[in-house]
Amino acid sequence: MAARKRASSISISNKPDPSEPNSAPSEQKMTRKTVSASGEEFRLAPPKLGVIFVISTLLCSLYLYLLCFHYKVDNELKRSILINAGLSLVGFFVTLKMIPVTARYVLRRNMFGFDINKRGTPQGDIKVPESLGIVVGIVFLIVAIIFQYFNFTEDSNWLVEYNAALASICFMILLGFVDDVLDVPWRVKLVLPSFATLPLLMAYAGHTTIVIPKPLVAYIGLEVLNLGRIYKLYMGLLAVFCTNSINIHAGLNGLEIGQTVVIAAAILIHNVMQIGASVDPEYHQAHAFSIFLTQPLMATSLAMLAYNWYPSSVFVGDTYTVFAGMTMAVVGILGHFSETLLIFFLPQLAGIVKCPRHRLPRYDPATGLLTGTKDGTLVNVYLRLFGPKSEKSLCIHLLVFQALACAFCFILRHFLAGWYK
Amino acid sequence: MAARKRASSISISNKPDPSEPNSAPSEQKMTRKTVSASGEEFRLAPPKLGVIFVISTLLCSLYLYLLCFHYKVDNELKRSILINAGLSLVGFFVTLKMIPVTARYVLRRNMFGFDINKRGTPQGDIKVPESLGIVVGIVFLIVAIIFQYFNFTEDSNWLVEYNAALASICFMILLGFVDDVLDVPWRVKLVLPSFATLPLLMAYAGHTTIVIPKPLVAYIGLEVLNLGRIYKLYMGLLAVFCTNSINIHAGLNGLEIGQTVVIAAAILIHNVMQIGASVDPEYHQAHAFSIFLTQPLMATSLAMLAYNWYPSSVFVGDTYTVFAGMTMAVVGILGHFSETLLIFFLPQLAGIVKCPRHRLPRYDPATGLLTGTKDGTLVNVYLRLFGPKSEKSLCIHLLVFQALACAFCFILRHFLAGWYK
Repeated sequence: MAARKRASSISISNKPDPSEPNSAPSEQKMTRKTVSASGEEFRLAPPKLGVIFVISTLLCSLYLYLLCFHYKVDNELKRSILINAGLSLVGFFVTLKMIPVTARYVLRRNMFGFDINKRGTPQGDIKVPESLGIVVGIVFLIVAIIFQYFNFTEDSNWLVEYNAALASICFMILLGFVDDVLDVPWRVKLVLPSFATLPLLMAYAGHTTIVIPKPLVAYIGLEVLNLGRIYKLYMGLLAVFCTNSINIHAGLNGLEIGQTVVIAAAILIHNVMQIGASVDPEYHQAHAFSIFLTQPLMATSLAMLAYNWYPSSVFVGDTYTVFAGMTMAVVGILGHFSETLLIFFLPQLAGIVKCPRHRLPRYDPATGLLTGTKDGTLVNVYLRLFGPKSEKSLCIHLLVFQALACAFCFILRHFLAGWYK
Repeated sequence: MAARKRASSISISNKPDPSEPNSAPSEQKMTRKTVSASGEEFRLAPPKLGVIFVISTLLCSLYLYLLCFHYKVDNELKRSILINAGLSLVGFFVTLKMIPVTARYVLRRNMFGFDINKRGTPQGDIKVPESLGIVVGIVFLIVAIIFQYFNFTEDSNWLVEYNAALASICFMILLGFVDDVLDVPWRVKLVLPSFATLPLLMAYAGHTTIVIPKPLVAYIGLEVLNLGRIYKLYMGLLAVFCTNSINIHAGLNGLEIGQTVVIAAAILIHNVMQIGASVDPEYHQAHAFSIFLTQPLMATSLAMLAYNWYPSSVFVGDTYTVFAGMTMAVVGILGHFSETLLIFFLPQLAGIVKCPRHRLPRYDPATGLLTGTKDGTLVNVYLRLFGPKSEKSLCIHLLVFQALACAFCFILRHFLAGWYK
């Protein structure tokens, strides 16, 4: 949810009064000049490429090692994955290039926010361009669309699901951007993802069964339970949860994108482990499908993180949070690993259960530290447990926590495999 | 293209200066009050339902007569078409209800324009909410998505194309809305549709051949020519053309939507005639597919026309024009009647060839009439040929002209059938 004071609707009263038509032309002329002047003056701080280099090395090296050296991945599949990685890299540079341009356009339309966690300091009075997630979303879509030409033929079975995924993600970006521009009421916002998932659920042709954990088989009397339509309902709810959870676990510079890239790295590692451990080509395809959408998400997100890392020179907007949440939900559903995905989202799940709304910690301009308030969001609970922190170090702590949760998920899977399922 | 003076970027210079942080809170409070007051005061003129009743009777009666009485349409197909019509009707009422609500949100974000063709009169100073096409687009998508549940099964062959169509249309709506909000440069705008058509072209599994007209067979030596990838390029260009043509043949109250509903009615009649004249189920499906997307387009567009008819109380924005153009291109491509579609677009084609940019006629506040300028757009040429007209009567003239062009297309097809192909 919008983690900063929205300044967009401030200006309406200062408009030239329509009852004085004579004064309008001169006033408008003057304004135009000011606009173009401020447009030229505006310079975004350079992208923090050093930080991005460190983060992407930390996150991607294990994945790339597993993909290229550890597992023997089928050559054709590896080729597709590497083409996708190449396109994603192009997407990274395009995003990096497009953000400063778009930031000027966004500012011209008065879409900016003030950073609340710096309120009372000079930095808190800078207009930060808002909703730059739209760049990431559009570049992601274009990469994903172009990739089709390299991997699918017209009669490919996967094309249904791929197009449904694109339709869902695109619809979610559209709704997110509409929300950013028009400030949709909170209740409407919460249900919008359920519309956006419909194309996906319709196209989902995978299993609708759950494997009963072995210790429970004796009680239930079944090894596999076919849930049918209820399974689809579960998937729809999963999408609503993922989309809203990133939106709610937000409000610190870099946290929205940070948690996305951490989870995306975990998804990539999970996928390549599953591909390496299995010989079933159908299973390979499901996880490759997931990789094909996660790599561009990761690359374009990292490009924006270069501008959004503390101190943020752009904000991501709801456009980004719903887009990232939806893409990960889609990937989990079509890759058939939604239960694993849920464990990757454990920190967010804990946050939503305790406080299903967005609440910020309190900022003290004198010390520059954030203190937890009584609200039950993860950010506040963490601050109460571990004491006041600066925004940057809090963000890093929370991202490490996210990474630990993902590591816990892998350990859990390792120990439960065989016994549980 | 924006057919009115964009007032959106006027206000940026009147913002509270960030260098005076102390003055900001009080100023903001005052502004908030003004905003909410103006938000409550704002009332949209009631929808012109009488006009819509007349227009929809004129346009739909022939189609409904052909569908229900004239041709013997397979019962199951007719059932699907009627379910789609029912959903479209629901879409009509939802759009009618949503436009006034959204208009308030849009105004709050300073997305409005002044009506240039009324400049100098009191009506020219009213702030008219802009970009309401987003409502039509979103309602259309939701209707189209929900309809999947009634018509397709998970293994339906049509689902690939249907999802690709949804992805393309949705991406186009997103780009149109981004353009409305951020004012994308003209050159970028022209090529955006080519990205949006990519999912569609990828999923297109139909023929890529053209039938050589009989008189030319002797010269070319072929009856059927397979164009392969060139045919796909042609389809991509068709989408770019349709999308831009509606956008360029615009600028009068009601003209954008008016031409869309006239062409949509022609598409519906063409489809039902083709279904009635053939016994090939595959051919039926192609045209039914086209009906399934055209009916919701027609219904939601008519709902907005009730507000956009002269004098407009809302403007449609580029969101609408690119959405409508793209939907019709998609329908023509997947229904396999792109050549016929091009003839429906004859007036637009003439306009684009003469002047591929948007140019408005000159308005004379004294007489209330529009006079053609030297620019070669269809609107100006028409005014030069037939003398000055009021905005409303010019719009009606142009719509009748559009209807005549569509009728001409039917006559042409009738006489050429057999001889030409």
